[in-house]
Amino acid sequence: MSKLLIVGSIAFDAIETPFGKTDKILGGAAPYIALSASNFNISSSIVSVVGEDFPLDYLSMLQEKNIDTSAVEIVKGGKTFFWSGRYHNDLNSRDTLDTQLNVLADFNPVVPDNYKDADIVMLGNLNPLVQLGVIEQLTTKPKLTILDTMNFWMEDAFLGDLLKVISKVDVITINDEEARQLSGEYSLVKAARAIEKMGPKYVVIKKGEHGALLFHKEQIFFAPALPLEEVFDPTGAGDTFAGGFSGYLTKTDDISFENMKKAIIHASNLASFCVEKFGTERMENLNRDEVQRRLQQFRELTQFEIELS
Amino acid sequence: MSKLLIVGSIAFDAIETPFGKTDKILGGAAPYIALSASNFNISSSIVSVVGEDFPLDYLSMLQEKNIDTSAVEIVKGGKTFFWSGRYHNDLNSRDTLDTQLNVLADFNPVVPDNYKDADIVMLGNLNPLVQLGVIEQLTTKPKLTILDTMNFWMEDAFLGDLLKVISKVDVITINDEEARQLSGEYSLVKAARAIEKMGPKYVVIKKGEHGALLFHKEQIFFAPALPLEEVFDPTGAGDTFAGGFSGYLTKTDDISFENMKKAIIHASNLASFCVEKFGTERMENLNRDEVQRRLQQFRELTQFEIELS
Repeated sequence: MSKLLIVGSIAFDAIETPFGKTDKILGGAAPYIALSASNFNISSSIVSVVGEDFPLDYLSMLQEKNIDTSAVEIVKGGKTFFWSGRYHNDLNSRDTLDTQLNVLADFNPVVPDNYKDADIVMLGNLNPLVQLGVIEQLTTKPKLTILDTMNFWMEDAFLGDLLKVISKVDVITINDEEARQLSGEYSLVKAARAIEKMGPKYVVIKKGEHGALLFHKEQIFFAPALPLEEVFDPTGAGDTFAGGFSGYLTKTDDISFENMKKAIIHASNLASFCVEKFGTERMENLNRDEVQRRLQQFRELTQFEIELS
Repeated sequence: MSKLLIVGSIAFDAIETPFGKTDKILGGAAPYIALSASNFNISSSIVSVVGEDFPLDYLSMLQEKNIDTSAVEIVKGGKTFFWSGRYHNDLNSRDTLDTQLNVLADFNPVVPDNYKDADIVMLGNLNPLVQLGVIEQLTTKPKLTILDTMNFWMEDAFLGDLLKVISKVDVITINDEEARQLSGEYSLVKAARAIEKMGPKYVVIKKGEHGALLFHKEQIFFAPALPLEEVFDPTGAGDTFAGGFSGYLTKTDDISFENMKKAIIHASNLASFCVEKFGTERMENLNRDEVQRRLQQFRELTQFEIELS
């Protein structure tokens, strides 16, 4: 069975949306990625770090989804990374109210021996030096290495490290504004082309409610986001997308462009569930029938017959 | 042969974009709609008004595309409607620099006898009273009446008239912000549902570079905008979309939801050309092969195979 190695933060999140607010709940890139990928019944392992304050119940919940958490370091006496944010009324933008890196500040990732030959490596959003540290521990070149990142790492202090890790990956997933910032190009077509020159052969640009684009040389594929009546909490949607993308590719063991299209659809489909409840709640309680029904909705939403002559 | 009746403004536009500026060039909803629809080799007629300052060459150009301009009133001593605007750097927003209604202020539309039984009626953006005036002159109920409008007519002074014309049409095309304004709903799914309650059985929400959504009861179809390297001038893209939509439906004489999906794709395809040059220039010089090639690109951009179980 193919193996997916996931690196990413594990956090406490405190979230405010126009619909309500939460106390500290499970957050961070890694749980969203892993929960999403777990829909494909693959072997996966999380490399991450938490403090002694982290409830073991959260790790048990992940383990029950067949996610290996033995490489989640628990720092004695340490406190778990904490993020707090408030979404604006349109849910498209947010203010960060508080960030406490805590144990994440000194995180040295250790890839477990049985994942040093992972088939697919999903580098969730983190300090690029941590992402590089994971790549360096691999003993076998993965079939595919996927990087997710964000604008925070494009500041001068981190940009050199970010460009270094970007040069070593096969796929980058990034949102539209970040693609523009990284490339200096406004047109997303030009931005993707510029980012391909930095290393990745595939560029995925995430546009939130406006869908996602996959670029590879002259080829472009687009998947819309499912139009939803309510978006409750957008936190984790991008990570859920990355988890669906990497999970599907791990399951199918096929990294052709044609199969990546399907991965993008599965990724969009899973992300559409994530935003329906606070935090990871919806992803923890998602069944196969719901996923299949919504895939059918994606098909109806986008598929057409046109005669060409 | 099926007939398409088009009502809409004819204007002089003076446009500034980050790429340059124009003197007075041909503009207004009707020429864009008619040029776009002319790609389907249908019979069409424009009901509109111009001043004595309007170059007859423009009318000849339209006539050469098989567009009947005999119902374009030329007001002796009158001046043609003039609009001037400047686009911001992102081309997604613009400032209106000048609007001179001129002959449009007192326009009384007269539908020619041979179009009073038009199969499809495309009411381009105009004062809703003019749009109502056209509907009232029809002797046969059209198979489909399509309304395009904009936020200007949602102000208190016009809203009553707008709601009246909305209640009489089958399809409304409107952009995302306008749909939110008209319905008071932020979610586009809810907005479309609210607008359907106002009368139209089909609601098309145009999202510019983010594509377009077609709503009908519980069904939703989405077409992306083609990702372009350069957008030169967005003026007229929405009208070109409306022309492609109405033109394709006129040509195929089939107003089923399945066929409307195809119409949305053709509409998006034609709009992708419009923005490549200033004003109507690109639409005046568009050939069948270019249109077909880009339809193929739309297919590659959006079509996928997914196994459902």
